[in-house]
Amino acid sequence: MNAQVNFDKLEVGYDIPAVPGMDEADIQTPCLVLDLDALERNIKKMGDYAKAHGMRHRVHGKMHKSVDVAKLQESLGGAVGVCCQKVSEAEVFVRGGIKDVLVSNQVRDARKIDRLAQLPKLGSRILVCVDDLANVADLSAAAQKHGSELEVLIEIDCGAGRCGVTTTPAVVEIAQAVAAAQNLKFTGIQAYQGAMQHLDSYEARQEKLDIAIAMVKDAVEGLKAEGIGCELVSGGGTGSYYFESNSGVYNELQCGSYAFMDADYGRILDKEGKRIDQGEWENAFFILTQVMSHAKADKAICDAGLKAQSMDSGLPFIFGRDDVEYVKCSDEHGVISDPNGVLAVSEKLRLVPGHCDPTANVHDWYVGVRGGKVETVWPVSARGKAY
Amino acid sequence: MNAQVNFDKLEVGYDIPAVPGMDEADIQTPCLVLDLDALERNIKKMGDYAKAHGMRHRVHGKMHKSVDVAKLQESLGGAVGVCCQKVSEAEVFVRGGIKDVLVSNQVRDARKIDRLAQLPKLGSRILVCVDDLANVADLSAAAQKHGSELEVLIEIDCGAGRCGVTTTPAVVEIAQAVAAAQNLKFTGIQAYQGAMQHLDSYEARQEKLDIAIAMVKDAVEGLKAEGIGCELVSGGGTGSYYFESNSGVYNELQCGSYAFMDADYGRILDKEGKRIDQGEWENAFFILTQVMSHAKADKAICDAGLKAQSMDSGLPFIFGRDDVEYVKCSDEHGVISDPNGVLAVSEKLRLVPGHCDPTANVHDWYVGVRGGKVETVWPVSARGKAY
Repeated sequence: MNAQVNFDKLEVGYDIPAVPGMDEADIQTPCLVLDLDALERNIKKMGDYAKAHGMRHRVHGKMHKSVDVAKLQESLGGAVGVCCQKVSEAEVFVRGGIKDVLVSNQVRDARKIDRLAQLPKLGSRILVCVDDLANVADLSAAAQKHGSELEVLIEIDCGAGRCGVTTTPAVVEIAQAVAAAQNLKFTGIQAYQGAMQHLDSYEARQEKLDIAIAMVKDAVEGLKAEGIGCELVSGGGTGSYYFESNSGVYNELQCGSYAFMDADYGRILDKEGKRIDQGEWENAFFILTQVMSHAKADKAICDAGLKAQSMDSGLPFIFGRDDVEYVKCSDEHGVISDPNGVLAVSEKLRLVPGHCDPTANVHDWYVGVRGGKVETVWPVSARGKAY
Repeated sequence: MNAQVNFDKLEVGYDIPAVPGMDEADIQTPCLVLDLDALERNIKKMGDYAKAHGMRHRVHGKMHKSVDVAKLQESLGGAVGVCCQKVSEAEVFVRGGIKDVLVSNQVRDARKIDRLAQLPKLGSRILVCVDDLANVADLSAAAQKHGSELEVLIEIDCGAGRCGVTTTPAVVEIAQAVAAAQNLKFTGIQAYQGAMQHLDSYEARQEKLDIAIAMVKDAVEGLKAEGIGCELVSGGGTGSYYFESNSGVYNELQCGSYAFMDADYGRILDKEGKRIDQGEWENAFFILTQVMSHAKADKAICDAGLKAQSMDSGLPFIFGRDDVEYVKCSDEHGVISDPNGVLAVSEKLRLVPGHCDPTANVHDWYVGVRGGKVETVWPVSARGKAY
């Protein structure tokens, strides 16, 4: 099940929270647990959707940072490859055997550009985003140095307010420079509207996406007028993929969180006003935690705090429980309100963290469970790969 | 300088952000940078304070999770050993050669208790906190099984509202059970007031500590009345150590953040009403980041987001700069307000993160710099050791 890891060399507890074959009850906490049934259903569902809508699905590897999850998304969900945000992540995915990798971000540091330009030689297609003319010459020089080809998407800032150009003339100008540059290929447009993904209302999200789609259409037409075609128009997330899929201009999705779900995404509403974690997607990603003190009658202290999760999107909720509530988080402790004293010391609970991406990035391992047993343990392959 | 790491085997960029001897300008970002001069001054200053006040200083290793920093605290700051919060952290410190290690937390899981009871056999003194009578028998059984001795501190909840008992009779009852248990030794009291450390006002902190000190004095006297002496009364943090040191009842400090400093601690005020990062302690701990996009004139995008730091205590500030401000954080990006367009793409900046502990826990390496050169690179030895 996992050819990369020699479990015989790992000590449960010190090195790793669990090994395959172990009962779920014996897992050392806190750690990440994946419900493999739910994960597989999520992956298949999004894959089927993309296929039915004629969309390529380039899954967002920055969410899970796992070669194993990416491969499951390819085999079960028909994913065409991954996108990620850092050169170091791309290095992990390429070395792990992913054949089509987009760094959906700018790469400006000289040494990072040099590293990026070496990756195509390992046998994968490598794409990168550009939002500045000055970057084109640097990428071209590095690709020439290594005798490789880098494909380029021009990034449009369609509402996220971070990287990316904001006008069609700017897109055209950079695209022309890319097309003219040695060892670079102009491949299309990157336009991910990150800021709207977490708006609760479906209509509010649609409104923002309509603006993004109009910008992207204008850019594609502007390029066409100059005789430049777009092979890929890429974007779309868990809160928007249906808008891009029906836009008539995007042809590639970049969804990430749908596979795991988290508390913050789970709260957004679908077209019928229902939370997306109550039907559209299942919670497949948990922090397993254990009660370690119940010295006060109405309060249980668990072992998952700030070092087991990211708090940027709020507190986790306790999966499947209405009678107890995670109410406070400090470095190594979580405070659980337990007004009726129903929790026992050593009892284990599943937390759904606020935000899956930075929570996964704190852990070294995913413990995959099915039917009460540990079926697999996968490394968080690109954990800490931020540079 | 670092016997543990074979830098020849590590690829700069993919494996590690820098190697010793490198110019500071070549460090791959984002990564953690330690100003070694400032770090050494902080460590020496606290060591001198503890010595002058007749206090043992058991430095809090959960803050930095680094064997190398702990050893510097021993050699330069006279530290007697470390405390930490998890068995897996204790395993790292013991294996790294720290001879006096307190798990300043409860250990309730059967397998974790078994792991803890094995540690004294590696040659270190091991202490652990207890707040529940039922825990005593489990610890004793494991220590007997392994033929080892565990020392026990009874934890008093003196205001943090997490683990710990709240009455002197409860302290006495558990202490008596410990004293009577095979292979356990009653060593004293753990009383750390975590909740008050970050109150801005010196007087507000003093008020909370007065309550804690009164509780601890009562417990020590209650124990004495039963013929039980306390070898150690341990507690105190960066926002309170002067109160414990002058209490007449504590004899051991547990400070952590003083060595690194962070934005949240830096804001609290000393007796004269001055921020503690403006005289009492120096910022020695930074996230080095690089500008990666400046496609908008008034906004620079840097490469340090949620995966390079913890946001639980707010945004980082940019060290030594008043003209630019870190205003927004997403997964891999930081947005820097740059109204006058003074920043250039590829420029590097030092961020002081909101909270040092969970920020250190995201990274694999500390890059120690002095005089513009990388002098050492230390592993964050217990990173991810949460179980």
